[in-house]
Amino acid sequence: MPEDTSVLSIAEIGSFFVGGRMSRLEGLPQRERVSTPGGPVYFSDPNGEIMIGQMYVQFVRLAKPLAAAPLLMRHGGGMTGASWETTPDGRPGWQMFFLRAGFDIYVSDAVERGRASWAPYPQIYAEAPYFRTAKEAWEEAFRFGPEGSWHPDAALRRTHPGLRFPIESFDAFPCQCVPRWGGNDVLTQHAYDALIQRIESDVILLTHSQGGNFGLTAAMSNPDRVRAVVSLDPSGAPDPSHQDAGKLRGVPHLFLWGDFLDKHTFWVHSRPAVERWRDSLISAGCDVTWLDLPSLGICGNSHAMMADDNSDALAGIVLDWLRQRGLAARA
Amino acid sequence: MPEDTSVLSIAEIGSFFVGGRMSRLEGLPQRERVSTPGGPVYFSDPNGEIMIGQMYVQFVRLAKPLAAAPLLMRHGGGMTGASWETTPDGRPGWQMFFLRAGFDIYVSDAVERGRASWAPYPQIYAEAPYFRTAKEAWEEAFRFGPEGSWHPDAALRRTHPGLRFPIESFDAFPCQCVPRWGGNDVLTQHAYDALIQRIESDVILLTHSQGGNFGLTAAMSNPDRVRAVVSLDPSGAPDPSHQDAGKLRGVPHLFLWGDFLDKHTFWVHSRPAVERWRDSLISAGCDVTWLDLPSLGICGNSHAMMADDNSDALAGIVLDWLRQRGLAARA
Repeated sequence: MPEDTSVLSIAEIGSFFVGGRMSRLEGLPQRERVSTPGGPVYFSDPNGEIMIGQMYVQFVRLAKPLAAAPLLMRHGGGMTGASWETTPDGRPGWQMFFLRAGFDIYVSDAVERGRASWAPYPQIYAEAPYFRTAKEAWEEAFRFGPEGSWHPDAALRRTHPGLRFPIESFDAFPCQCVPRWGGNDVLTQHAYDALIQRIESDVILLTHSQGGNFGLTAAMSNPDRVRAVVSLDPSGAPDPSHQDAGKLRGVPHLFLWGDFLDKHTFWVHSRPAVERWRDSLISAGCDVTWLDLPSLGICGNSHAMMADDNSDALAGIVLDWLRQRGLAARA
Repeated sequence: MPEDTSVLSIAEIGSFFVGGRMSRLEGLPQRERVSTPGGPVYFSDPNGEIMIGQMYVQFVRLAKPLAAAPLLMRHGGGMTGASWETTPDGRPGWQMFFLRAGFDIYVSDAVERGRASWAPYPQIYAEAPYFRTAKEAWEEAFRFGPEGSWHPDAALRRTHPGLRFPIESFDAFPCQCVPRWGGNDVLTQHAYDALIQRIESDVILLTHSQGGNFGLTAAMSNPDRVRAVVSLDPSGAPDPSHQDAGKLRGVPHLFLWGDFLDKHTFWVHSRPAVERWRDSLISAGCDVTWLDLPSLGICGNSHAMMADDNSDALAGIVLDWLRQRGLAARA
């Protein structure tokens, strides 16, 4: 598809926070600190109220939106909203694609990620964060190459055959990664639900990876406000033995899956939970579309499908699916 | 001034990273981890290459920019690019103001802040971060009220007389704060200089607080590329005994200062370094404008002047100054 270079007519770009609350730190020792080279030394008291649990949300509102509802774009684990912006090799990302398709866009940074900030451990968060290594990004998380294929020397790295991630720009990709924690799901879900409440219109949820579970769960809490849920390679899902998928009969769901899922233990072990939720949605009579890209003849997509060389074509699949449900303007 | 509600014609919104490099972690123990509730437990090896030192830069490029050069907006200490977006009480921020004035905008998150991510300590950063308490934000850092005026109960907080910060929306302000470190100035400056090199056109630098020293220093390294430097309440500056301000004869400088500077030890101790640099610039024959807002009869501005209730009027002062130097389109 030829690149769309049309000019966007935009009413406002801005941001807000949701979900934060004050928490109090006590009993920590004072520290000496210098704020800027050559600046004065002063004592810093780390005790007192700090804000925790907030989520950052940046919006771009079109002068004349054409879609049925704004699109809320939520990143995956160890990532930020930057996932949806420019691709590592400099192409416009899904944010631009869906703006051009007429959607108001809300891109969030989840609690503990990016501009949402994070809170001290062990005082607020229970444990230390995880920093994603380039090896983990290359292999298990994003499926660029098989286990053991990462190498610090770019010339010695191997990829999966036919990989569509723009591997010559790999170094720009780990720049997008931020630390993550393992135990903040309640805080994170709370803020994401608060976002849906804060936006006064209905919403369409688009999530990636770890974001999948939060999006699918948010739809359960807000079935009258969520017009559709699009999950890219979701790493988890609600447990049908504790949740009634029947609430979602009016909420269409699209699951879009990349390639090489059977080559990585993490994905082999993660997908069954999502399959169980899919089956539960289908049993309850929901509108569910489950697309394994390779089964459509689209092979080579990594877990970073919004960065792959066919990213716009994949966004087009999502857009067509939304159009078929009356949620996006016709081409 | 009436609010400008004109529609923006935008060519592209996107982002990139500059300044990152791979660093290797070794000798750390393996950890057990669960990525999503109900997901599989797996072992996470924290050792290996991780990306450090990158800066995040989000751009908004107009279809038809009217200014002489793009405006690079750089936040202060313990903050992110969100500083320039919507104000805590929901008004459009300086980013919107300068987009409407015809500038392409590059908003950055410095190394260790927001979407730029941060690196583990003590392996990469030397020490633990500082988390800003609400008391520190209220009193010493942002000068909303005198020392001792913060209280957890909003009804018991006191402000400086005539304060222009929208104090009823205070809780939205600490949401913007992120942890900071004390020892990463070299990494931070490196990435900021790399940003100026990455942008192919000339640039205009706009900085806040801790960003001031980085902006003033970047101008010294790139005097042929920087068309102007605007510093809001800079907390530091280059040392004239080690730097030749004569290089900056062609680079106009605006220093804009808020109110209540004499009421807080940090600011009393910080400002002399900036005054020394100002004097050095003037001695070298540079075009220097030093505006103490109270001396213009504009009283009550906090350190968060881009969030104060006269934020657009202050942006207008900056815009007029740029216009007078041929760097912005006439009204």
